[in-house]
This record gives sequence, structure tokens and C-alpha cells, in this order.
Amino acid sequence: MSKYGMYVKFITHDGKREELAHTLLQVAEMMDLVTGCELYVINQSIEDENVLWVTEVWSSKETHQASLSMEDSKDYITASLPLIKHVEKVELQPLGGHGI
Amino acid sequence: MSKYGMYVKFITHDGKREELAHTLLQVAEMMDLVTGCELYVINQSIEDENVLWVTEVWSSKETHQASLSMEDSKDYITASLPLIKHVEKVELQPLGGHGI
Repeated sequence: MSKYGMYVKFITHDGKREELAHTLLQVAEMMDLVTGCELYVINQSIEDENVLWVTEVWSSKETHQASLSMEDSKDYITASLPLIKHVEKVELQPLGGHGI
Repeated sequence: MSKYGMYVKFITHDGKREELAHTLLQVAEMMDLVTGCELYVINQSIEDENVLWVTEVWSSKETHQASLSMEDSKDYITASLPLIKHVEKVELQPLGGHGI
């Protein structure tokens, strides 16, 4: 079964990036306990002060799908919606490399 | 000192993605021995059959900079240039999360 990955780009309203980063780091902490989550890394863009990127790698698309129904991460994301202007996703198939 | 990260998008000429992925996976193997390299993951785009993305995380911008002068990874990349149509980069500051 092949791994599944994503880059998720969050574009926030002006001045709201830090608040969203704080929330996403809390979600990332929960991922320590989630089956199949191999990477959930929060990054801020160096070029654009309203942009965060989340790097995700999952053992399969199924484990990622299952995580979407987790109540607590859903609550966090719903609470953050007022901070978020737009979300974009790049879907990936990780082939391998150093660190996963 | 803050970590440094990048998403590097390689757009290949038609039918050349697999060959470039093979080369990048060899470069990734070398990163096991490179100081400060925490992540060097090769991904193929699910949407676009000519696109590869490399996810990089370094302990600092300096360790990344130092790696660019490594002869063997330079040789690999130079040998791959005929496969590559275009390269784009997203520069990131990793804030933390699960897996790094």
C-alpha cells in the first residue's frame, strides 16, 4: 500500500497567522497518537506573512481519511475558520527519502 | 537558531519523471550522512504526471547552504538537468509538529 501526502496551504486574514499556527501546532501534537500519521509539520512561509503550510505524510490514504472523523481535530479546525481566508492543497504520493 | 525548510517543485519533460525520481532518491540516500538534514522526501504529484516535489527540512539555513557545495549531490543534479523543464521553490520556516 503506498503512502499518501499533502501540502496544505492556509492563507489567513491579516495578522492572524500566529494564532492559526498555535492552533495547528496543537492539532500536530494530537497526531502523535493517530494511527498512520508519519508527518504533520507546521511551517510558515518566508515570502508571505499571511501563509502557513502544513506538510503531511500518512501510511495510506485510508489512515488519512480515518483521521478526518476525529472529533477533537475537527473542533480545532472549526474554531479556526474565522482566521482563514483560503485553503489550497497539493496531493502527493511520497516515494521515499531521508526522514520518513 | 530556527530550522529551515523548502518545497522544491521539479517539472520534467514528458515521460522523464520516473528517471528523475530515481536520481533524487539516490541524493536522498546521501542525505542520511549530511549534517543538519532532517527531512529530504521525494514525492510525486498525484494531479500532474510531470511533477515531483521534494520536501526538505534542515536544522538551519547554514547547514542547508553547506550541503549545496557537496560534490556528489551536485554531480547527480547536474546529470539530471536534461530531464528538467523548470524548478520552483517555496521557502519555509518549520515551526514544529509531528515527525521532526
